[in-house]
Amino acid sequence: MRRLFLTAALLLGCKRHHGQAWAAPPSAPAESLRDEALAGSKAADHVRSLTDEVGPRLAGSEGDAKAVAWGLAKMKSLGLTHVRAEKVMVPRWVRGVETGAVTAPHAHALTLTALGGSVPTPEGGVEADVVVVASLEALAALPDTSVAGKIVFFDKPMERTKDGLGYNRAVDVRGRGPSAAAKKGAVATLVRSITPSDARLPHTGGLRYADGVPAIPAAALAVPDAMLLRRLADAGPTRVRLVLGCHKEPDAESANVVGEVEGRSAKDEIVLLGAHLDSWDLGTGALDDGAGVGVVLEAGRLLAARPTHPRRTVRVVLFANEENGLRGGVAYAKAHEAELGKHVVALELDLGTDKIFRLDALAAPSADPKLRALTLPLASLGIAGPVKGEHFGSDISPLRAQGVPQIAFAQDATRYFDIHHSADDTFDKIDPKGLDQMVAATVAFAWGAAEMDGDFGRIPPHERGEH
Amino acid sequence: MRRLFLTAALLLGCKRHHGQAWAAPPSAPAESLRDEALAGSKAADHVRSLTDEVGPRLAGSEGDAKAVAWGLAKMKSLGLTHVRAEKVMVPRWVRGVETGAVTAPHAHALTLTALGGSVPTPEGGVEADVVVVASLEALAALPDTSVAGKIVFFDKPMERTKDGLGYNRAVDVRGRGPSAAAKKGAVATLVRSITPSDARLPHTGGLRYADGVPAIPAAALAVPDAMLLRRLADAGPTRVRLVLGCHKEPDAESANVVGEVEGRSAKDEIVLLGAHLDSWDLGTGALDDGAGVGVVLEAGRLLAARPTHPRRTVRVVLFANEENGLRGGVAYAKAHEAELGKHVVALELDLGTDKIFRLDALAAPSADPKLRALTLPLASLGIAGPVKGEHFGSDISPLRAQGVPQIAFAQDATRYFDIHHSADDTFDKIDPKGLDQMVAATVAFAWGAAEMDGDFGRIPPHERGEH
Repeated sequence: MRRLFLTAALLLGCKRHHGQAWAAPPSAPAESLRDEALAGSKAADHVRSLTDEVGPRLAGSEGDAKAVAWGLAKMKSLGLTHVRAEKVMVPRWVRGVETGAVTAPHAHALTLTALGGSVPTPEGGVEADVVVVASLEALAALPDTSVAGKIVFFDKPMERTKDGLGYNRAVDVRGRGPSAAAKKGAVATLVRSITPSDARLPHTGGLRYADGVPAIPAAALAVPDAMLLRRLADAGPTRVRLVLGCHKEPDAESANVVGEVEGRSAKDEIVLLGAHLDSWDLGTGALDDGAGVGVVLEAGRLLAARPTHPRRTVRVVLFANEENGLRGGVAYAKAHEAELGKHVVALELDLGTDKIFRLDALAAPSADPKLRALTLPLASLGIAGPVKGEHFGSDISPLRAQGVPQIAFAQDATRYFDIHHSADDTFDKIDPKGLDQMVAATVAFAWGAAEMDGDFGRIPPHERGEH
Repeated sequence: MRRLFLTAALLLGCKRHHGQAWAAPPSAPAESLRDEALAGSKAADHVRSLTDEVGPRLAGSEGDAKAVAWGLAKMKSLGLTHVRAEKVMVPRWVRGVETGAVTAPHAHALTLTALGGSVPTPEGGVEADVVVVASLEALAALPDTSVAGKIVFFDKPMERTKDGLGYNRAVDVRGRGPSAAAKKGAVATLVRSITPSDARLPHTGGLRYADGVPAIPAAALAVPDAMLLRRLADAGPTRVRLVLGCHKEPDAESANVVGEVEGRSAKDEIVLLGAHLDSWDLGTGALDDGAGVGVVLEAGRLLAARPTHPRRTVRVVLFANEENGLRGGVAYAKAHEAELGKHVVALELDLGTDKIFRLDALAAPSADPKLRALTLPLASLGIAGPVKGEHFGSDISPLRAQGVPQIAFAQDATRYFDIHHSADDTFDKIDPKGLDQMVAATVAFAWGAAEMDGDFGRIPPHERGEH
């Protein structure tokens, strides 16, 4: 209820603006593009092509290199211009053997997967008693003597929510848990997979080792295995054995793949449509983020096919290495530093295949009437807003830090985290109709932003970081 | 619609019986047992104990031996008497390495698992082009030249149904597909997992090699992998590589675990409550058939705890080796051949954890009024019937062949086959309330059958085999 109230209060449409002399761009082309996409887009075909022909594409892997080549060829075939690979050096982390078992009080194989970036276990694995904690705070409250020499198991269930914020609330134990445990002398970390699903598939994801603390191996348990371990540990002393063979190799070359629909007059002004090309290695990255890739490519194709391009350039960027480094997003902001003032707005799609229900925005306060006008053609798609947003795409966060206005489409994430970062992230989970709606919203908004007079200003300095 | 009509026509209650002088057993004890179970049984505790303390228990494995010991101890602790292990020699099949990959046109790892009983692939694996067929009939229609030297992939989706019959309609390709393919010269068989779920977990299950045909290796693909393989093969030539290390060892000793609630007068007349103690090796056999084990043990406990036992003996049997041999069911019928005439009725629970909605029966036609009377106390549990049934428990099918009346509880199987035979068959999927309802129905029916005057007669000879 509190959330609903806040959302309502933040609806930008609640404010009144006076004295603005601004003409919205003609809505007919946006509506026509929207309806064309909604009638049946090729977004699902693009996702199928990427997942079936390339497959998993973890940064720096062979699949990643294939994905870059795929992206370049696909953009050209769809009619984008100035298509290029902008080189990015990315971390190269390689998954190895990964096994785990409860050794006492009862023998059980554990279904688990290493967290991305984890160090391996020592030769022969690690075996220790388990200490269960429900959160980082619960760990902090334990004396070091209860943790030293043990395997810390973070059992923090994720809540299923439509807006996906259940994920944000649970994920801290994955990112910061390993170092928090190591600081107290733990020898390894297990986390309950950050997912509301009870399928026996572990969900990987990145971790961040803190400086000055030993890096300890870390893995995610499938939820059924986490529940088993919790039952056993609640009943008495429980030992676990963990073997991880993952390791890091030298940074590898990858690329942001960039293509454009050149503006008909203000060619140097940019409306950026982004998604990330890399994926985790367990599935084929269909929802994360094949869906986003398919949508922005299809939006580009529809715009490029118009006899008259919009005034500004629409730039499609498929970012490298979102999952375990964000090197693509950082490299883009650096390489394009000189033209960031000409980036009118950036939008990233990275929340799966299900329908968009709201447009979130962060821009100058003076942009409100423009955002409202550009959201109007989306109302028939079931999209509310604009609402002042807080969370935007990871890859465009370095642009946010420079004041570039941000758009996020709030999508129905009810089932997204059942799939995300697991072997289950495969093409069959794609909803083609969901993608059509996403393309419709993206292309209509992009057209409006690329056509309108004036811009959205800059994000005020105090709002350029995520709180 | 046709099915509904048949069901209605078969409702035994539709028939009228005249001239029968028979007094139903007093319903108060059945109702009291039913209500006691429904208020909260210990069935889920028994399932948790079996799955957490023993885990997977494939026939002949170490887990199977542990399960027999567990069953004996549990029966004794629950107050059953004449508790014993009745020796059964069981096949011992051991899963080994199992990997698969699409090698052309695009490289993909395949998530798969060997079918139970499969022979291994030759040293170094097998690699061949794939031929996709939708059914045994579609395979039969192909010329041998289209199949020889290839890997036959049966892509037969399973329909989700409440009564579970979608499984029966799809499963023939798993049992008989490998030999049907071998007869035409195939080198290996893949089947789409027999499940309505799209989770990326393969479902194993037994196969039956035909005599006089080479035994070829056979594996089940997870549904997302089956869909991928289908897409690729529909588009053009597709090659797959398969490595299976599974093998057979000499038969091993296992046991049917038997315990009783001794009848207060007709001690030698038997009401049999069965479930199977073995499980597949991928999960911990919580639904298949930990649930059945928990329910019949709990029904036994409740009956044993009554100050006055029913007239007849209620015998609880935990059968060995249901999954890949049925040796337990066959051995029971053989060992008890002399007393099968005294087996009044046999009931097996082996369809998971969700609610019973109907009682199915097969007995002498003269048994109808008795079956109706004994079903009456189940009406408040949402259980319809009695209906003349066709499918009964596997382990009691050798008793059916001898004319012993059969009862099956039709359970809501809507989600059962999402889980069954996969790594996902774990305790967290158990619904304790569902088990309580199952116990309530089982104990009330068992009391009535053990208390009533007279019996259900024998199954007529022409109905003793499954059609």
